Amino acid sequence: MPVTVVGSIAFDAVKTPFGERERMLGGSAVHFALAASFFEEVRVVGPIGDDFGNEHLRALQRRGVVIDDIERVAGGRTFFWRGVYGWDLNDRQTLDTQLGVFAEFAPKLSAGSRETEVLFLANIQPELQRQVRAQCAGARFVALDSMNFWIETARDSLVAAISEVDCVILNDAELRQLTEEPSFLLAARKVRGWGPSVVVAKQGEYGAAMVTDEGFFALPAFPLETVVDPTGAGDCFAGGFVGYVAAHRDAPLDHELLCRAMAYGTALASYNVEEFGTERIQRLSSEEISDRVAELSRITRFIEKPLPLRR
Amino acid sequence: MPVTVVGSIAFDAVKTPFGERERMLGGSAVHFALAASFFEEVRVVGPIGDDFGNEHLRALQRRGVVIDDIERVAGGRTFFWRGVYGWDLNDRQTLDTQLGVFAEFAPKLSAGSRETEVLFLANIQPELQRQVRAQCAGARFVALDSMNFWIETARDSLVAAISEVDCVILNDAELRQLTEEPSFLLAARKVRGWGPSVVVAKQGEYGAAMVTDEGFFALPAFPLETVVDPTGAGDCFAGGFVGYVAAHRDAPLDHELLCRAMAYGTALASYNVEEFGTERIQRLSSEEISDRVAELSRITRFIEKPLPLRR
Repeated sequence: MPVTVVGSIAFDAVKTPFGERERMLGGSAVHFALAASFFEEVRVVGPIGDDFGNEHLRALQRRGVVIDDIERVAGGRTFFWRGVYGWDLNDRQTLDTQLGVFAEFAPKLSAGSRETEVLFLANIQPELQRQVRAQCAGARFVALDSMNFWIETARDSLVAAISEVDCVILNDAELRQLTEEPSFLLAARKVRGWGPSVVVAKQGEYGAAMVTDEGFFALPAFPLETVVDPTGAGDCFAGGFVGYVAAHRDAPLDHELLCRAMAYGTALASYNVEEFGTERIQRLSSEEISDRVAELSRITRFIEKPLPLRR
Repeated sequence: MPVTVVGSIAFDAVKTPFGERERMLGGSAVHFALAASFFEEVRVVGPIGDDFGNEHLRALQRRGVVIDDIERVAGGRTFFWRGVYGWDLNDRQTLDTQLGVFAEFAPKLSAGSRETEVLFLANIQPELQRQVRAQCAGARFVALDSMNFWIETARDSLVAAISEVDCVILNDAELRQLTEEPSFLLAARKVRGWGPSVVVAKQGEYGAAMVTDEGFFALPAFPLETVVDPTGAGDCFAGGFVGYVAAHRDAPLDHELLCRAMAYGTALASYNVEEFGTERIQRLSSEEISDRVAELSRITRFIEKPLPLRR
């Protein structure tokens, strides 16, 4: 099933202990689309400015991403984010955010995007997420991401948006902040009470955990000696996860399938952080993804053997 | 193979969002011994004061723990720790530490303890750990824990102690602090360069990761709705892990066995945090341990299926 994603298309300026980049291709919809493109056709909905060069659009097209719904706003500037990471790459500081064309963004989906069966609402204003959701009435699987800013400034809208989707994919800490629950299990229960059947907590370097109708699942992050740039890891995870679901139109959307989707999301995220921005994913191969999923299975499996305990 | 543990025997005063306890039985050697007692005979080496009642010794004896090497210091006071946990149970604050009899502790092991084949050096002064290690020359598997205080005040001694053991079990953050490496893989490589072949990082609510000669393994924590008191979780993990190893005298100490040991450690730790101090472990059954290990296997396994990726 084709996938539609709405979210930011951006230029990112990033500094990490391993180097820095100025104005590289980024944004949640871009990271998501490149990752999901390994599984299904992806349509990106989002605005860009005059400053967004065709070479960046070609980077998406080379992976088969459909760019018909990328709206170029004459006289506008593309969304820009500048951030810096310290040695603890979990801890990032935003130095600058320029909304540019995103300030006036009103999503207008083409017929092709509206007819999507799988939809990802990346981290944007919750009311915009709801508008897009409403335009895709026939979608069979809708997932949503968000962030602390919306939890703090638009919580009611966010909860309303969440109540209209099937799956929530949030950072661990943001899930607790949103639900005011101390554990993932309690947070997931509360979110599931609002509507979604699937809740995923992204735990950064520790991996990800999930609750579905059938129970709990957790997977560590793929072990890496060096993380060069964590920017976009969460969106790549979502791209791998949602993309995997979309590639299985005829299979039941059950716990087992969603667990495998977690593994693909984890693999995509792990490649993403090995280099700056989209650099690694742009030249990733499907064989590399399969290799890492197989390795993830191997390094998380223990073979149970009954042990006669003492008493 | 019987297990000897050297470490603190203590009274803990703990306050968490779920309640509080004054002067309950605690200490690293106690938590470790109760957990390991499900797998093998355990001997505890450590000092207590006049204030340590026989009912506490009986709590150890009821689980078959050998208390011959628990030294009662006349006129002394038992080690005392007071701490408080906030809503984020990963973050604890020490309000009071009274070393008591621990200030003058010089471990003198009985013949029975010296002949141990498995030894756990719980978190005490690294030079004391080395003295005990030297007394147990015939030990086949020696594991060590430590903490930030020793990394900051006795790093050279700690590195020397580490070079004399087979396995290091440290908190994730402390492993990074000790090695000054940003990732677990790099930290584990450095520690393995000092001598130990097995390095385990305890990651609190996120579980634990391990590197052995044969590679990497990771396991999430057992999912719990409520953690009542995390005190002693790390020692219970070590008790389950080391106890499992000790119970397999005739099996090769390979990666596969150590992965299973991680699962038993994880199960013991998860029960420990469900109630205050040693309360839950004191009435734990071996069936409950087996049940949780089986459940851990189930909630971490995904069944790989080849997926024809797009390109």
